[in-house]
Amino acid sequence: MARDRAIVLVSGGMDSCVTAAMAVSRFEAAFLHVSYGQRTESRERECFDAIADHYEVKDRLVARLDHLARIGGSSLTDPGIPVGEADLARTDIPATYVPFRNAQFLAAAAAWGEATGARHVFIGAVEEDATGYPDCRRSFFDCFEKTIAAGTRPGGALSIATPVIAMTKSEIIRKGTAMGAPLHLTWSCYREERVACGTCDSCALRLRGFRNAGMTDPLPYR
Amino acid sequence: MARDRAIVLVSGGMDSCVTAAMAVSRFEAAFLHVSYGQRTESRERECFDAIADHYEVKDRLVARLDHLARIGGSSLTDPGIPVGEADLARTDIPATYVPFRNAQFLAAAAAWGEATGARHVFIGAVEEDATGYPDCRRSFFDCFEKTIAAGTRPGGALSIATPVIAMTKSEIIRKGTAMGAPLHLTWSCYREERVACGTCDSCALRLRGFRNAGMTDPLPYR
Repeated sequence: MARDRAIVLVSGGMDSCVTAAMAVSRFEAAFLHVSYGQRTESRERECFDAIADHYEVKDRLVARLDHLARIGGSSLTDPGIPVGEADLARTDIPATYVPFRNAQFLAAAAAWGEATGARHVFIGAVEEDATGYPDCRRSFFDCFEKTIAAGTRPGGALSIATPVIAMTKSEIIRKGTAMGAPLHLTWSCYREERVACGTCDSCALRLRGFRNAGMTDPLPYR
Repeated sequence: MARDRAIVLVSGGMDSCVTAAMAVSRFEAAFLHVSYGQRTESRERECFDAIADHYEVKDRLVARLDHLARIGGSSLTDPGIPVGEADLARTDIPATYVPFRNAQFLAAAAAWGEATGARHVFIGAVEEDATGYPDCRRSFFDCFEKTIAAGTRPGGALSIATPVIAMTKSEIIRKGTAMGAPLHLTWSCYREERVACGTCDSCALRLRGFRNAGMTDPLPYR
């Protein structure tokens, strides 16, 4: 029986890499990457291609959403707002939040999915061990799934799968390792593209995750 | 009292022009235009700027969403699929439907709105006298509004205003004329950028609208 087609959003980070590992094990996967003027755009794009090569996924689309950088309002896209040092105890929304970013990603994924007969969209969002981004909440994905059903042709609806949403970083690392996901091909640092800073939120979460998993991160740190 | 800020999606067509007229009369309006590789992209962009000039709206953003053309699946974005002759009695979804297009537009508008403290998004979608596009249905906009509330920062939610959604084309033309909306600066033809074809769905709807309104379309036709 032919497998269902799934669009997988692959940023180049660990969460989407492990999400991709899950998707390719069950579905005919097509990988979607979005460049939006973020600081580490080039490295993330390289990681996307490396992960897609690893899984031998030829069906790829790279979307450019330059308006997110022009809108700004985030330290990831506005060079005038520095990426702060890690604060994993923070409870407010950090400056790295890119306004409504995941909606742009899901809209692109759903459009590609509707046009090509996919049944599922996979996104590696994490809610619990996360950074307080409003567009990583489960309620947001539930609403978006209904929006796809309401705004696509009959039979065009896609489910939104968020298989790592409730996992901690260390659980994601353990799961990915167990599945043979190429975590050495991922990138997480918000600031740097060649040697990770080790002290931004994203590096701190990643390093804590490897520590809690009892493993060593294969990436180079400053 | 300072007026609320509203993001207005202005395509360059009549429906969004009249929608813009309504928005500027009540809100501090910022105009958003999207180019996505559609056949009449240049003309629509010119109309956007002309309408914004008319309303003296300096706060403008033009987003490029090239992935919609690469995804294809529509005669508006795929040169290999011809734009057919008008069939206003059609009940199925026409080939001009661009998969989940309005979701991309609303996502961009909401991101800009969230980043700049807007309270409303205006979009000139028409459901009744329309072309059967699934992303023009009221239920889609209702869902998307909930999605914005679920996926933006506390206090960042925006309402989605669709003031012409239940109007016929002739009602839109009458309303626009009564408000002094610059309909002569709009463009509707799906095929041509200088002299309208007069026989695509969009031209046929427009011409019928002017006829039913007892008025003459100021645009040149073949």
